[in-house]
Amino acid sequence: MSKIAVVFHSGYGHTLRVAEAVAAGAGAELVPIDADGNLPADGWETLNAADAIVFGSPTYMGSVSWQFKKFADASSKPWFSQAWKDKLFAGFTNSATMNGDKLSTLHYFFTLAMQHGGLWVGTGMMPSNTKAAQRNDINYVGSFGGVMTQSPSDSNPDEMFAGDLATARLFGERVAAATRRIAG
Amino acid sequence: MSKIAVVFHSGYGHTLRVAEAVAAGAGAELVPIDADGNLPADGWETLNAADAIVFGSPTYMGSVSWQFKKFADASSKPWFSQAWKDKLFAGFTNSATMNGDKLSTLHYFFTLAMQHGGLWVGTGMMPSNTKAAQRNDINYVGSFGGVMTQSPSDSNPDEMFAGDLATARLFGERVAAATRRIAG
Amino acid sequence: MSKIAVVFHSGYGHTLRVAEAVAAGAGAELVPIDADGNLPADGWETLNAADAIVFGSPTYMGSVSWQFKKFADASSKPWFSQAWKDKLFAGFTNSATMNGDKLSTLHYFFTLAMQHGGLWVGTGMMPSNTKAAQRNDINYVGSFGGVMTQSPSDSNPDEMFAGDLATARLFGERVAAATRRIAG
Amino acid sequence: MSKIAVVFHSGYGHTLRVAEAVAAGAGAELVPIDADGNLPADGWETLNAADAIVFGSPTYMGSVSWQFKKFADASSKPWFSQAWKDKLFAGFTNSATMNGDKLSTLHYFFTLAMQHGGLWVGTGMMPSNTKAAQRNDINYVGSFGGVMTQSPSDSNPDEMFAGDLATARLFGERVAAATRRIAG
Repeated sequence: MSKIAVVFHSGYGHTLRVAEAVAAGAGAELVPIDADGNLPADGWETLNAADAIVFGSPTYMGSVSWQFKKFADASSKPWFSQAWKDKLFAGFTNSATMNGDKLSTLHYFFTLAMQHGGLWVGTGMMPSNTKAAQRNDINYVGSFGGVMTQSPSDSNPDEMFAGDLATARLFGERVAAATRRIAG
Repeated sequence: MSKIAVVFHSGYGHTLRVAEAVAAGAGAELVPIDADGNLPADGWETLNAADAIVFGSPTYMGSVSWQFKKFADASSKPWFSQAWKDKLFAGFTNSATMNGDKLSTLHYFFTLAMQHGGLWVGTGMMPSNTKAAQRNDINYVGSFGGVMTQSPSDSNPDEMFAGDLATARLFGERVAAATRRIAG
Repeated sequence: MSKIAVVFHSGYGHTLRVAEAVAAGAGAELVPIDADGNLPADGWETLNAADAIVFGSPTYMGSVSWQFKKFADASSKPWFSQAWKDKLFAGFTNSATMNGDKLSTLHYFFTLAMQHGGLWVGTGMMPSNTKAAQRNDINYVGSFGGVMTQSPSDSNPDEMFAGDLATARLFGERVAAATRRIAG
Repeated sequence: MSKIAVVFHSGYGHTLRVAEAVAAGAGAELVPIDADGNLPADGWETLNAADAIVFGSPTYMGSVSWQFKKFADASSKPWFSQAWKDKLFAGFTNSATMNGDKLSTLHYFFTLAMQHGGLWVGTGMMPSNTKAAQRNDINYVGSFGGVMTQSPSDSNPDEMFAGDLATARLFGERVAAATRRIAG
């Protein structure tokens, strides 16, 4: 059975909820990056053993949090030996603003995955964008390269939109299906 | 008095409405790119004489329309002599989806402006992103690098959100103020 | 046997040479976009039938040529029905300048592929970047997301660097290997 | 007289040399980010008082170093009150590889500047890209949105290319000229 890891940083708990939804859909293991930008014990081993790695981070000041970037910089060690080559990669991000430069974060995830010699899979979901569209529709926030979710600046994690979490879960299922195609 | 030109392509009329709002705010002249990717007579002269050039295009398939790109490629003539060097540049885009890769279009506008040796000015607007936010708030779509507007895939140009058009008009005013700072 | 198509535009023949090298490595069929941005007869059928599609374009004024973008906009037809979903995508670009915004072009290719619901594969090649590096080394231009090649502004297509063409051929082989993993 | 600050992180000393060259050209004050991602005493005051802020960072794993990102995240405090609105911004990056995703770093600098409500100025330099081009030509590495320099992975800071440093110095002069236009 293929192994999927979700490595993510969450500042206030919103991104954690998205990570849990992706992991539920994918049957993945969570690898949380802590407030100092470090992985848990066995975190690197989990990533090294995975067939697919999903990146997750809030969008802070136009890109991934510094904690995620610290993890990314530390991944120069597996990069140097191309230890993650040919793994599948994917990503998701959350921020308070509808757009708010979330695509910049996804572009960074993609760039990091390419440095690692990986393959990338996006949402494969058409956006909900007609006049009848509702906030809780699948992919209402409307992203292709990875999942984007949105939580108002004064909202708690338990107030996240059900549609965004459902989108994240479906995305996890898609990542799992793509991983099976690649890893057998 | 400083001169501002808005050079844009509109496929179905939505981007035209945004262009008109930006131009109204900026006191700018409209330079529409036609369905074949060509400028009107005197279009190039208007751009050459401008202190500031604002780019506008729908986001089609993840970036500017091909008609806008044809104009951009034709701008290799002023590029070669750096005839537009030190002008101020800015940009806006419209699409059906809330995100829908609109940032990719703005990034392209920025890249083009930098090739021309220009300066760039963004929205300078904080997004409306609290729980109390309403669709017609200023900068609800939530962009910093340039204006993003959104019109559902089955909507007519006369159905565009009033808030998006107000955002575009304020953006025009900001471009005009920045042009005065630079061009005197 | 898996089928790979290389759909590309070449303005002066340099990108054509890169396309031929990629196709030689991948065992791919060439689908040239003409000077008006149109595909040859059966071009769309070739793309529809392919397991993998490789995008190629010169970088003009900071992104793909307008002719490539016209093709991309026309691909809204298969996009609408997500006819290319789950295909593998990849890309390459050539320009006169060592950097010259080539990454902007690759980012656009990626964005387009994601809109089509595809997977993406990059070079998987470490760059040649030590003091001993030579211009004709594999991946000297130094790209991860797709192949970048460089040909001086006053050079003819027959003067392209052998190392760049060898890089392109190896990239084709990598695309073919990835396609076999996915398409069986 | 206008005030310019160069806020930068350098991991091994190469980016420091570029920062010094930019500062020499611009008549700017250096604000180094330390190995923990913190500013020196008075660092925030220097930035708050500046008419122009130049960002500098190596490109590590496809974007700014985590130390630079920690600074960027901490700039959410002036961002919240838009304290840096209407300042001029610019940026530069160094890495071992000729391309190596340096444009991703510059795009991030731009994104950050736009979140702060700033204006942006690029190199305004045509690249050296003919057959006669030499490694030490101005803008040989070939960037428009900001300065890119390149130092081989096994080189010391004192081995940096003279042409790259000269490019950085000229860029500093350009930033200073643009600042005078804006700040008087």
